[in-house]
Amino acid sequence: MIGGTGYTGVELLRLLATHSAASLGVITSRSEAGTPVSDLYPSLRGSVDLNFTVPDATALAQCDVVFSATPNGIAMTHARDLLDQGVKLIDLAADFRIKDIPTWEHWYGMTHVCPDLVAGAVYGLPELNRSVIAQAKLVANPGCYPTATTLGLLPLFEGARGDDVALVDASTLVVDAKSGVTGAGRSAKVANLFSEVADSFKAYGAAGHRHHPEIWQNISSVTQQAVGLTFIPHLLPMLRGIHATIYADLLDSAQPLEAIHERFTNYYSNEPFVDILPLGQHPETRSVKSSNVCRIAIHKAVGSNKLVVLSVIDNLTKGAAGQAVQNMNIMFGLDETEGLSSPAIMP
Amino acid sequence: MIGGTGYTGVELLRLLATHSAASLGVITSRSEAGTPVSDLYPSLRGSVDLNFTVPDATALAQCDVVFSATPNGIAMTHARDLLDQGVKLIDLAADFRIKDIPTWEHWYGMTHVCPDLVAGAVYGLPELNRSVIAQAKLVANPGCYPTATTLGLLPLFEGARGDDVALVDASTLVVDAKSGVTGAGRSAKVANLFSEVADSFKAYGAAGHRHHPEIWQNISSVTQQAVGLTFIPHLLPMLRGIHATIYADLLDSAQPLEAIHERFTNYYSNEPFVDILPLGQHPETRSVKSSNVCRIAIHKAVGSNKLVVLSVIDNLTKGAAGQAVQNMNIMFGLDETEGLSSPAIMP
Amino acid sequence: MIGGTGYTGVELLRLLATHSAASLGVITSRSEAGTPVSDLYPSLRGSVDLNFTVPDATALAQCDVVFSATPNGIAMTHARDLLDQGVKLIDLAADFRIKDIPTWEHWYGMTHVCPDLVAGAVYGLPELNRSVIAQAKLVANPGCYPTATTLGLLPLFEGARGDDVALVDASTLVVDAKSGVTGAGRSAKVANLFSEVADSFKAYGAAGHRHHPEIWQNISSVTQQAVGLTFIPHLLPMLRGIHATIYADLLDSAQPLEAIHERFTNYYSNEPFVDILPLGQHPETRSVKSSNVCRIAIHKAVGSNKLVVLSVIDNLTKGAAGQAVQNMNIMFGLDETEGLSSPAIMP
Amino acid sequence: MIGGTGYTGVELLRLLATHSAASLGVITSRSEAGTPVSDLYPSLRGSVDLNFTVPDATALAQCDVVFSATPNGIAMTHARDLLDQGVKLIDLAADFRIKDIPTWEHWYGMTHVCPDLVAGAVYGLPELNRSVIAQAKLVANPGCYPTATTLGLLPLFEGARGDDVALVDASTLVVDAKSGVTGAGRSAKVANLFSEVADSFKAYGAAGHRHHPEIWQNISSVTQQAVGLTFIPHLLPMLRGIHATIYADLLDSAQPLEAIHERFTNYYSNEPFVDILPLGQHPETRSVKSSNVCRIAIHKAVGSNKLVVLSVIDNLTKGAAGQAVQNMNIMFGLDETEGLSSPAIMP
Repeated sequence: MIGGTGYTGVELLRLLATHSAASLGVITSRSEAGTPVSDLYPSLRGSVDLNFTVPDATALAQCDVVFSATPNGIAMTHARDLLDQGVKLIDLAADFRIKDIPTWEHWYGMTHVCPDLVAGAVYGLPELNRSVIAQAKLVANPGCYPTATTLGLLPLFEGARGDDVALVDASTLVVDAKSGVTGAGRSAKVANLFSEVADSFKAYGAAGHRHHPEIWQNISSVTQQAVGLTFIPHLLPMLRGIHATIYADLLDSAQPLEAIHERFTNYYSNEPFVDILPLGQHPETRSVKSSNVCRIAIHKAVGSNKLVVLSVIDNLTKGAAGQAVQNMNIMFGLDETEGLSSPAIMP
Repeated sequence: MIGGTGYTGVELLRLLATHSAASLGVITSRSEAGTPVSDLYPSLRGSVDLNFTVPDATALAQCDVVFSATPNGIAMTHARDLLDQGVKLIDLAADFRIKDIPTWEHWYGMTHVCPDLVAGAVYGLPELNRSVIAQAKLVANPGCYPTATTLGLLPLFEGARGDDVALVDASTLVVDAKSGVTGAGRSAKVANLFSEVADSFKAYGAAGHRHHPEIWQNISSVTQQAVGLTFIPHLLPMLRGIHATIYADLLDSAQPLEAIHERFTNYYSNEPFVDILPLGQHPETRSVKSSNVCRIAIHKAVGSNKLVVLSVIDNLTKGAAGQAVQNMNIMFGLDETEGLSSPAIMP
Repeated sequence: MIGGTGYTGVELLRLLATHSAASLGVITSRSEAGTPVSDLYPSLRGSVDLNFTVPDATALAQCDVVFSATPNGIAMTHARDLLDQGVKLIDLAADFRIKDIPTWEHWYGMTHVCPDLVAGAVYGLPELNRSVIAQAKLVANPGCYPTATTLGLLPLFEGARGDDVALVDASTLVVDAKSGVTGAGRSAKVANLFSEVADSFKAYGAAGHRHHPEIWQNISSVTQQAVGLTFIPHLLPMLRGIHATIYADLLDSAQPLEAIHERFTNYYSNEPFVDILPLGQHPETRSVKSSNVCRIAIHKAVGSNKLVVLSVIDNLTKGAAGQAVQNMNIMFGLDETEGLSSPAIMP
Repeated sequence: MIGGTGYTGVELLRLLATHSAASLGVITSRSEAGTPVSDLYPSLRGSVDLNFTVPDATALAQCDVVFSATPNGIAMTHARDLLDQGVKLIDLAADFRIKDIPTWEHWYGMTHVCPDLVAGAVYGLPELNRSVIAQAKLVANPGCYPTATTLGLLPLFEGARGDDVALVDASTLVVDAKSGVTGAGRSAKVANLFSEVADSFKAYGAAGHRHHPEIWQNISSVTQQAVGLTFIPHLLPMLRGIHATIYADLLDSAQPLEAIHERFTNYYSNEPFVDILPLGQHPETRSVKSSNVCRIAIHKAVGSNKLVVLSVIDNLTKGAAGQAVQNMNIMFGLDETEGLSSPAIMP
């Protein structure tokens, strides 16, 4: 692992600690080099015995796969070296998610140092790209909001091969998304203090958020329609969990909800980590806390022609570290659920 | 006060305790009759010396105004007696909010016992109905979601007299609303236990919610357009606060946001309890905690033609008890801000 | 399982779902008979496929072991039948914890129906009674406060065989204990509503709490001294976790803290679920969230002769369901950590 | 006001905004100079119109009183100048609380620059020092833990004049104290992030805390006995509130609790901000949220000879800004409750 002092890192360590086929060789952090991992995270005392080390190319080159759990812009500086040495790379940041380089550079405010690698990177959403992930050397692990949103929308469009009939007007998508505070990371900012966010709620990034182009890219890949997407994120006074409330105009307002529900259920019938709730239910974020599952419910709105999709994930698990482990499992031909089968903790 | 054992009741007691022109004569509760108010609410020890009593028509008839803070369906059984004796009535429940009786009976699941009084009742949103509130005998205090939503939408339409130009297409309204748990009341239900709702988030009532027709009625009163409204409420793991995220298609996509912002600012320039934030800001629910203020921000979405309005209130204050006191002040010719001028507590 | 609709029940289901040697045969609940477990607990969708059933002696008799996760006073009515049929019983309630029957009857307010079974029951704290648990037919799973407190105190006394030197004066014990709200159970009570306990803190049961005699019994079993115990519980506005802050007068005020720390470390050196923190640290309840570990730190107070022991557990895991699984593992000769090795989730 | 960007500052601004006799002339902050106060704290929009300014001796000299709400060690550098110009000073930090200079320098890690002023400063706990506060030029506003603890202990000793009989052994005091997170201030530290402290609980400072000598000094001033004090603070996952659980050995174990309760009630019978709860009750921190009240309950422990005192305050109000306003009221001959009479918000 490169990085690993943030919440995504500790979640990855938690999951790998009980993974039967993975063994953590090295974990790097410039700022914490020399510190036992379990000093920073006492929850891992007895489970993880490594110390953080300064990044060392030789040590990393001996791994089968490297997880990069660093801030945006770091993985792109390591990627070529690792790949050249035959090490597979799963980047949990955003460096390889967006295919259009100018778009990426606009939203992330930096110049991309290896655009050629972006072209070959595989967007690591197994429900969309499982077969190519299996062959991938470089996987761009999806963002948390895009994971919850894309899984909630996928069954509504023609699909990557255009086989299905689209059910909704892709130009009318509204995604009102809410995230727990761990999504904001572990850096020392006044805005993320307990006393600033507890017992309160707000929208943020209403003028534009980096996950907008990522969601747009995903949906555009499965529909011929022009995608019009409104995306507004909000900050929840809780630790883990993303809830995406998705609104879209039905193309056929007479379509019975039962038929749409059946389509969702069939679409995900072989997916180990997507659960379509019975009609009438509403998913709670706690129902996926610490698990790699995405739970989805669909409703028809009163007073309009809109379909409403409710999609929840744990931002640190299916929205980050769990999905990274799922991708690793696929890349190495392991059982896709290995290390990921514990039910959510409740409550 | 009739009722007063719930959170709306204790908030009303808190506000009246420092109101210079109001004196609480009697507070009724069948279930708590005989109990000192301050036994149920130690926060009021030293501020409120009354005991709860069984409802007594004679005692209530001596009041200038009665607040009814009971469950839905109770105030309508008391209203005629009180009004006949010259007592003004402010109902904090829903009995007199909806003008269309079949609609009310559909959503509230009971037969209305005094439809004639509904016709004469005034919907107590001062920013919409101040002058008629001043003359009213019976005020229907608005619901919490409708208050936040309606205040966020009012400046966008022609207005009650049709003078203005509508800015948005009324058929495209999406209201994604979130409420703190106090909005669910104080009855003993498993669903509202701390261990059920803490550190979690969910939508509820996606198949239809009672506040839908109330919002629809409000907006329909200020536009000639047909109103198409999607309304989905959610439950926040926090005590107080409502955040309405409102989406609407702009009729003129070239309209600069600055002009819309100016319209909001002008619209509410004389309102003591509506605050339009500077462009670029996002209101936090905590910025209105325990206060009667509604704070509103507006944004233009990236990737679509939608205006996004963010509106926050404290559900127990501007969304219930505070607005009731504001209505009382107006009905009795008092300074409208009397008893309501304390800033929000922070944090 | 008998019972299983409460938080202890769902935690037990979570742990058993990934236990390699246990298979859940039947789960009973009179109130939820016929309901799929995963309807009540969507977190278990895909992991637990059983329905709740009415208690059926025949079905229970086919199990190797029955967990009773019912309110106090129920297990004692089932115990003899199960034991007579050769089924082992682990009671997660209090029916078999207290050896002195009049004391039990005083604190639990009912008549015990099988005092003879109490005598043969084993108090299921493995760190105290491992060898007898291995032979037990009937295990009384300890209470949550007593688990955290007893583990924090055990190394300070002579021990069950009187071999060691006592370090503290057993007549001076003060246990200031704090519990998350899940410890209060899942019944519908106003006092446990989110809106009643969130963002607040209080002591409760200061006039006497049922866990007092249980702690007293435990400590009295490992010292010749007369035990004087003050125990005050408090309610934390959080889901899971117990923190016991324990004060005791040192018998030798000159004893260096390092020596006491070494004694703790040695005492628990072979224990898989007790972790003594390095000197100077303070355990956080989140460091054991969802795990079966108890973490302990010791300090010497400024300004007095008191030793301060800080002990944390997850009340649902080491304080209930996890310890029950640990006991099952011991009773059936399994690896004691089977099903219990996942690190705490963080945060 | 000097300082005012922290939580104590914004609480002081909230209280002064509705104070009938106080007008805020200037508020200083080097880091935020030029920023409108209401930009930093939108909760004050419409209530406070000032901008932060750089500290300016001339402007401050025109005030009747200056509140210093800065970090420790700042007020002592301003004090002499202000006092020399006839400006009264209320320091909300610790600079003037401890009479013994070496003790202060030990705990606060700096050299005191004006020890002579310490001698003349008045410790601003009105319940202890009302008459001298009325004459004071320089008031040291007490710490939050010391306020809750001292008020809980005062009635148990001989009193400053030695008139009463002591009820407890002063050498046996244990104070297990818990504070909401606002007590930790508003600086950007990882340890105070929401994701670090939410849904968790821990002790801190077990090896020694700065409030220990302050409590010791207070108690020593009202008893001839030698004071032995153990003080352990803990961090609660909530915003506001302190709960001190205080243990002390009764000198006469036969003393009925009723008599002790009567003594507490009589002791505080004329105090506007101390409320002794009826026997059997437990104070909740929320019962004083945003108010200047301290609520106290007393219990006799089961199984020992200890008296247990439970004392709650809001750390930002009675524990800081509210007490500062109370002191100002006393110093200027105003009604002591002016600006402080709003009941606690609930919930």
